[in-house]
Amino acid sequence: MKLSPLSCVSVALAFSIVHTFRYEDLVEHVNSHQEQYVEALREWVAVESDSSDVSKRAELHRMMAMTADKLRAMGGNVTMADVGEQELPDGRTLALPKVVTAEFISDPQKTTVCVYGHVDVQPGKLEDGWATEPYNLTEINGNLYGRGASDNKAPVLAWMHAVEAYQALNMELPVNVKFIIEGMEETGSNGLDAMIVAQRDTFFSDVDYIIISDCGWLSPRPALTYGTRGNCYFSAEIEGPKQDLHSGVYGGTVIEPMTDLIGILDTLISPSGKILIPGIREAVAPLSEEEKKRYQDIEFDMENYKNKLGVSQLMYNDKVELLSHRWRYPTVSIHGIEGAFSASGTKTVIPAKVNAKFSIRQVPDMDPAVVKKQVTEYLQSVFARRKSPNKLKVTMVIGAKPWLANTHHVLYEAGKKAVKRVFNVEPDMIREGGTIPIARTFQDVTGKGLVMMPIGGFDDGMHSQNEKISRYNYVEGTKLFIAYLHEVAQIQRSRV
Amino acid sequence: MKLSPLSCVSVALAFSIVHTFRYEDLVEHVNSHQEQYVEALREWVAVESDSSDVSKRAELHRMMAMTADKLRAMGGNVTMADVGEQELPDGRTLALPKVVTAEFISDPQKTTVCVYGHVDVQPGKLEDGWATEPYNLTEINGNLYGRGASDNKAPVLAWMHAVEAYQALNMELPVNVKFIIEGMEETGSNGLDAMIVAQRDTFFSDVDYIIISDCGWLSPRPALTYGTRGNCYFSAEIEGPKQDLHSGVYGGTVIEPMTDLIGILDTLISPSGKILIPGIREAVAPLSEEEKKRYQDIEFDMENYKNKLGVSQLMYNDKVELLSHRWRYPTVSIHGIEGAFSASGTKTVIPAKVNAKFSIRQVPDMDPAVVKKQVTEYLQSVFARRKSPNKLKVTMVIGAKPWLANTHHVLYEAGKKAVKRVFNVEPDMIREGGTIPIARTFQDVTGKGLVMMPIGGFDDGMHSQNEKISRYNYVEGTKLFIAYLHEVAQIQRSRV
Repeated sequence: MKLSPLSCVSVALAFSIVHTFRYEDLVEHVNSHQEQYVEALREWVAVESDSSDVSKRAELHRMMAMTADKLRAMGGNVTMADVGEQELPDGRTLALPKVVTAEFISDPQKTTVCVYGHVDVQPGKLEDGWATEPYNLTEINGNLYGRGASDNKAPVLAWMHAVEAYQALNMELPVNVKFIIEGMEETGSNGLDAMIVAQRDTFFSDVDYIIISDCGWLSPRPALTYGTRGNCYFSAEIEGPKQDLHSGVYGGTVIEPMTDLIGILDTLISPSGKILIPGIREAVAPLSEEEKKRYQDIEFDMENYKNKLGVSQLMYNDKVELLSHRWRYPTVSIHGIEGAFSASGTKTVIPAKVNAKFSIRQVPDMDPAVVKKQVTEYLQSVFARRKSPNKLKVTMVIGAKPWLANTHHVLYEAGKKAVKRVFNVEPDMIREGGTIPIARTFQDVTGKGLVMMPIGGFDDGMHSQNEKISRYNYVEGTKLFIAYLHEVAQIQRSRV
Repeated sequence: MKLSPLSCVSVALAFSIVHTFRYEDLVEHVNSHQEQYVEALREWVAVESDSSDVSKRAELHRMMAMTADKLRAMGGNVTMADVGEQELPDGRTLALPKVVTAEFISDPQKTTVCVYGHVDVQPGKLEDGWATEPYNLTEINGNLYGRGASDNKAPVLAWMHAVEAYQALNMELPVNVKFIIEGMEETGSNGLDAMIVAQRDTFFSDVDYIIISDCGWLSPRPALTYGTRGNCYFSAEIEGPKQDLHSGVYGGTVIEPMTDLIGILDTLISPSGKILIPGIREAVAPLSEEEKKRYQDIEFDMENYKNKLGVSQLMYNDKVELLSHRWRYPTVSIHGIEGAFSASGTKTVIPAKVNAKFSIRQVPDMDPAVVKKQVTEYLQSVFARRKSPNKLKVTMVIGAKPWLANTHHVLYEAGKKAVKRVFNVEPDMIREGGTIPIARTFQDVTGKGLVMMPIGGFDDGMHSQNEKISRYNYVEGTKLFIAYLHEVAQIQRSRV
């Protein structure tokens, strides 16, 4: 039996008194529960759910279980999906963390949103220069410091608290809410792509919109994000002698892998940041006049940005150049070298096998499969010219596509209204230089509308030492999500 | 009262029966005590006396105390000299390990030798690719694996066991023996230079010869070493943003320190190993015809060397070229980068401050003070051309001079006789590509003759994973030292 929307409401009323949306009451609830929210974040930050460090895998599994437990306690219909195994460089396999899904369906006739988030984190060690213990949430001057605080544990919790607020006040959820929470985002969302494909016609069949809150604002002003860069992460490994050698005893008799590696890495980028790999720059979509104008209109304090980063000079002195190179042009970063001497002190070693990690941010119309070929062929040709007896192996470890949305989509219009209600300002319409690899997959596989609604602050230091989220952003962000659920429901009504 | 040599012997005879030198009895003693020797080495290797890791300093202090205890137990006159403090890069200071000296004076009229050695070690971690625990001495097929086994703990112990053998058999030591054992060799012998200068007219006043056994043979044939390369160890630090940045969020807006660092490192050496720093190659003494002939005469299996290192091609295919570039030409090795991402996994970071470690081996007539200036000026000029806003700081952390001896010196003639007695072969006359920084200081400050008498095997893997010394080299090396003390005493007699 298919009920009409009207009779459905009647049925609900027959069983309990359901209050209608009253924003002020919800705000009051959030304000009075912020200590519980901070405690919940403290408990989550304490879990060292570093997905890039295989030795921490048990912690990651525990984090997924805690996530499922919380959603179950909220009354959600929760599953933990097995997404298979991960192959390690040495050939061993390791179970991937399960993906947690949950459903809060108040009315099958209503719009259904699916909130995506992740609870894995980047590595974090006190000795890297943290002022506080990375896995011990510490509040200083209204900021909550801890690895994963902003990326992405607080936003995930804020979404849960938004649903809880409606539940606590016995207000019907304006839309049905689903969650899909993963534990491999920081290393490329292994296993999630296949799961989305597999559940396209089941879990995702009744999802209308996908919401991601895994990014940050550009300034103190709230923002909506309509694009992200992708990322191709490479490993270039050079292998020479069969073991590390004493640089005094053997130096001068072997071509050292480090010399070769430095030599090929130096051909990736010019001193001013120009990418030298043939074909990369040519693939980038040209900057349109409308786009250029949008950058010109963004209020962005170059001086403040420079000071925040602590550099005496940025790569570009012009705002449009800077923002466009941050968001819509590719860039190469060399992250480091595995296998060489990296500690303090003065080890006199010739490392036998060294492995450089670098990545190239992807933008429309680059294609990771093509980039993989371009980079591999280029490095192999550069290396061949060195006539080295060592062996080079280039591997693309992550190949995540960029994502770009239409800023005039109803989801963005609803977002602007929610921002207006909570913060009483218009949001910045921004892009994100970082990668949310799964955004593109959601779009390609499910064909659903996708919105990015960040609550992280512009200075949260995601992936850096001293990552934090402010109590303000965490609490007001919860209100934003509450308001957004209401605004998305309005889309539904105007559509019907 | 000054006694004549004759009356001195009479006095000694009046108190105990002193046996004369009987080599076979000493050999018998060594053979029957080899298990104790291995146990002594096991006890020493178990101490993680890594001088480059300041967090291991307590272990290093313990190692020096154990060394002093052993020498005291042997009846030596032992002192532990305070050589001051070490300044760390962050400005803190740390006590240097004390230098242990010991004296075994049987007769002030006799020749006195001073054995130099060190009991600190290079870093060693199982995860670097050791097959056994680096600090747990493990015997496999007659080889004793452990960090510091060959460099330099077994040779130091072998010298002590040589003295003990004479004592145990109640044979008078043929010469007086002094020991000077330090704990900072692997990081540049901090504090020792000053101590040698300070004690030139006291501890060193009656020393005739200095003996160092801190190197290895060239092949299975025993060798005497007449030269070592020096070493200038540099740190090139590039500092950019005030903290690590997310490569997605900030990539494309800052000139990354890693890009700059890779760029300047790539200007140090050509792909074929040619040093590109102006002035370095010009300072090297030309290869004389006599020297060339000496290299030609050395039996050296290039194919075996290549296979041992596990490379498909060496830097030079000609024996004279290869050996001379190993021993008497400078070379640049890039050891690694501190501050960048060096673990396994895929961290997407822009490291804020990166510090490359590289070193240049020194040969006559290079001068570390000049090299320091050449390298610093060159890198600063290369860096300036990049027009980077980042800051470069070049520091020479170690500046050790090369050392070269006259192979016709009486000490070497005595060495040849000792080798002949123990191994029944002529030794190879070799140089050492590695650095024993203090050799040059001993020579310059004390003006005494210095000999290098290695007992380490050619394949001991000093500074590498799986360092070892063979039981054969350890035990026969002890006999070599016993025989050498006797031969040195013969020099004295012929001189008088």
